[in-house]
Amino acid sequence: MIQLHLEKVRKWFTEEHEKRLAPLAEFAYGELQNRDRDAFGKGWMSWPVDHHESLYADIDKIASDFRAKSNVTVVIGIGGSYLGARSVLSMVQPEFTREGKHEVIFAGQQLSPTYHAHLLKYLDSREVTLVVVSKSGTTLEPSAVFHTFRDYLEKRYGEAEASARICAITDAQKGSLRAYADEKKYATLPIPDDIGGRYSVLSAVGLLPMALAGVDYRKVMQGAANMRDQLAKVAITANPAVQYALARHVLYQQGFVAEALVTYEPRVADFAGWWQQLFGESQGKDGIGLYPTMLQYTTDLHSMGQYVQDSRKVLVETVLDAFIDDAPELKVPVGLDEKNRYLENVSFHKLQEVAVESVMIAHSEAGVPNIRIEARGDAESLYGELVYFFEVACAFGGYLLGINAFDQPGVEAYKSEMRARLQK
Amino acid sequence: MIQLHLEKVRKWFTEEHEKRLAPLAEFAYGELQNRDRDAFGKGWMSWPVDHHESLYADIDKIASDFRAKSNVTVVIGIGGSYLGARSVLSMVQPEFTREGKHEVIFAGQQLSPTYHAHLLKYLDSREVTLVVVSKSGTTLEPSAVFHTFRDYLEKRYGEAEASARICAITDAQKGSLRAYADEKKYATLPIPDDIGGRYSVLSAVGLLPMALAGVDYRKVMQGAANMRDQLAKVAITANPAVQYALARHVLYQQGFVAEALVTYEPRVADFAGWWQQLFGESQGKDGIGLYPTMLQYTTDLHSMGQYVQDSRKVLVETVLDAFIDDAPELKVPVGLDEKNRYLENVSFHKLQEVAVESVMIAHSEAGVPNIRIEARGDAESLYGELVYFFEVACAFGGYLLGINAFDQPGVEAYKSEMRARLQK
Repeated sequence: MIQLHLEKVRKWFTEEHEKRLAPLAEFAYGELQNRDRDAFGKGWMSWPVDHHESLYADIDKIASDFRAKSNVTVVIGIGGSYLGARSVLSMVQPEFTREGKHEVIFAGQQLSPTYHAHLLKYLDSREVTLVVVSKSGTTLEPSAVFHTFRDYLEKRYGEAEASARICAITDAQKGSLRAYADEKKYATLPIPDDIGGRYSVLSAVGLLPMALAGVDYRKVMQGAANMRDQLAKVAITANPAVQYALARHVLYQQGFVAEALVTYEPRVADFAGWWQQLFGESQGKDGIGLYPTMLQYTTDLHSMGQYVQDSRKVLVETVLDAFIDDAPELKVPVGLDEKNRYLENVSFHKLQEVAVESVMIAHSEAGVPNIRIEARGDAESLYGELVYFFEVACAFGGYLLGINAFDQPGVEAYKSEMRARLQK
Repeated sequence: MIQLHLEKVRKWFTEEHEKRLAPLAEFAYGELQNRDRDAFGKGWMSWPVDHHESLYADIDKIASDFRAKSNVTVVIGIGGSYLGARSVLSMVQPEFTREGKHEVIFAGQQLSPTYHAHLLKYLDSREVTLVVVSKSGTTLEPSAVFHTFRDYLEKRYGEAEASARICAITDAQKGSLRAYADEKKYATLPIPDDIGGRYSVLSAVGLLPMALAGVDYRKVMQGAANMRDQLAKVAITANPAVQYALARHVLYQQGFVAEALVTYEPRVADFAGWWQQLFGESQGKDGIGLYPTMLQYTTDLHSMGQYVQDSRKVLVETVLDAFIDDAPELKVPVGLDEKNRYLENVSFHKLQEVAVESVMIAHSEAGVPNIRIEARGDAESLYGELVYFFEVACAFGGYLLGINAFDQPGVEAYKSEMRARLQK
C-alpha cells in the first residue's frame, strides 16, 4: 500500500498549481501511455501483467540448480544490472537474517583490485556459481570482472564444470556476451529489448538474483501488477505517481536544485540507490534535472540535519516512510536514569513514527519542502509496488520536462575516454 | 602522503583568485591558529601531538579484556560517535577480510526495530561486550538502544557480569551517562571537553573501536601528527588544506551548490560519510554552505554519471583518489572475446587509474570543476592524515565564510519536537 502525503509541501506546491497543471499533466500522461511513439524503452509498462510463465520456469530451474551445487553465487553487473537486485535483496532479507542462507554477492559494480581479490580468496572455502549480467557484453567493469572470475572457476573446476556453473543474462540474439555464452554453453536468460537497464529489475536481471537468494519473486511481480492496476483506475488528478511527479516538477521550476530520498529503515536504504539511478539517468540531461541524493535518517540527522535545517534552501526531501509487516516488536526496557525515563516502555516503532513526524515539521517549517510517501505491506509486494510507482512518476516527469526519459547519452563520454586510453 | 591537484579546477579557481585571496587566507588561518578566541572546539588541533600514554593504557586494557571475553562488541553511538569509527574500520579492514576476527558491530545509529531486534537475535549465539558512546547520555537514539542492549546483557549474564562487559565513553565528570556508568561500575573512557563530536575520531571515541577490531591506532595517530607537521611547515599559499578550502570557497561564491566527495575504492566509501558530517555540520548554517554529498565511482557513473555529465552545472567533484599500500595485485586474464581483448593482462590498478583520469577529463570538460586529492600510504597512517587534512580545511573554511565551524544549533529543532511529543 502506497499513499502520498502532500501536507508539508503545500506551501510550495499548492492546489492551485495542481489545477493549472492538470491539462499539461493530462497531455503528458497521454504521451507516456502512447506505446507507438518513442516505443523503445517502454516495455516495462505492461511487463508486470505480461505472460512470463516460461521465463519463470527457466529462472526456477537455473536457481535450483545453482542453489544445489553452490552456497555462494557471485552476481556480476553494474548500474541497472546491479542496483535493482541489490535493493530488493536488502529489503526482503534485512541485516543479520542471512546466516545459513544461500549467499548472493555482487561484483563488477566497480574496479577495485582490493574488493575483487579479497572476494576471490573468500570464495576458496565455498562452493561457487556465477551470474554475469550485461546486455552488450562490452561494458568495461563487468567484462573485466567476469573474465577474472570465469578464469578462476575454470582453473578451480575445469572448463566443463565451470561452464555448468555460469549463467549469462544478456541480449537474446546479439552482442559479445551472447556469442561468448553460446560458445561456452552457459545457461542464459534474456534481457528484454525494449526495457532499459534502470527499468529492468523485474526482468531476469532482478528475478534470477531474487530466486537465488530464495525470495518469492512472484509476489514482487504481483506487487508491481497491483500498483499498475491502482494507477490505471484513478483519475490523473488523483494519481499518486502523477502527483509526486508534479510536486517535484513545480519545486524544480521554483529553483530547488536537489532532491533527497529520505529513508528511515536500513533495509530500505539501498532502494534509494535504485531510485537515484532511475531519476539521475532519466531526467538529468539537456542541462535539466534535480540532483537526486539520499539521506538515511535518523543516522544522517546527526550529520546532515544541521545543513538541511539551517543552510541554503536548495533541497527537497521526499520521505520514503516504509514500514514492513515482518518488522519485529522491540521496546525500550525500564531502569533508565531520570533524564531518559520518558523513553521507558516505548516501542521502537513508535520512536520511528514520532521521528518521521517531528523531522517533517522541523524541516518544512525551516523552508524545506517535504513530500511523504507512506509505504506499508510485506517486503516483496511493497518492493514491486514501489518500483512501478517510481517508474511511472519518473517517465511521466520526463514528458513534463520535455526530455527523453529512456536514454543516457551522457554516460558515453568517460567510457570513450577510457577505451581510447586503454586501447593505445 | 596527500597531494592536491588543481589542474581540472583551474578554469574556475585561477592563480589570480589565489593571489587575491592570499591576505584573507592569511588572516583566517591566523584566526584558526589563535587558541584563545573561540577556544572551545579547538582541542583537536594539537591532539595528535598531545601526550596520551595513560589514555592509551586504559584503551589497551579495556580492549584486551573485551577481546578475551567476547567475540563481538556492539558499539552504540550516532553522528560523530559512529561515523569516524565506522570509516576507519572500513578503510583498514576491507570487505571479505574480517572472517575469524573480533567483530565490531555498530548500533544505535538509527531507530530501526528490525535492525536492532535481528541484531539481538544474532548475538544469542555469540559472546558479547558493549560500548556506548555519548557525551551527555541524553541523545535519544543511543540512549534507547543502549538500555535495550544493557537489559539484554543483564538478563543473559546477570547484572554484575553484564556491568563487566560494558564500557561507557562519555564526559569525564558530568552528564547522565557518566552518573549511570559510575553507579553501575562500568569501565569508562573520557570524551575530551574541547573537541566536538565530528572532530572526535582520534579520541577514545574512535580509538577504542579501533583497538577492539585489532587496528593499530598508534599508526593512525602518527599519520595525523605527520599531517599536522607537514601543514605547519609550509607557507599558507602552499598549504594543501588551505588551497582545497579556498578552491571550494571560490566555487561556492561562483554559484555551485553541491560538492560530491568521489571515492573509487569501496573501503574508502565510508570515509565520505565522515567527511559529509564534518562539512555538513561545520559549514551548513546561517543560510550558507555547499551541500556535501557522496559518489562511489565507478559504480555511480552508471547511475549518476549521466546527471553529472549533462545536467545543470551545480556540482563540484572532489576526487579522493586513494590507493592503499596493501591492495593486492589482480589482473584481467586472457581468453576474452575480440571486443574485450584490449582488457587482457591489464591490472585492475591500471583500470582504476585510467578511470580516475578519464572521468576527470570528461566531467571537467563538460563544466564540472574537479579537485583531486591524491592519497597514498598504508591504511592506518593515511586515515590519520586524511582526518587531520580535512579538519583543518573545514575549520579554516569556516573562518573564510564567517561562520562558527564548531557548533551545530540546527540539530536541536527536530530533537525538541520529538521530545515534546514523547514526553506528553
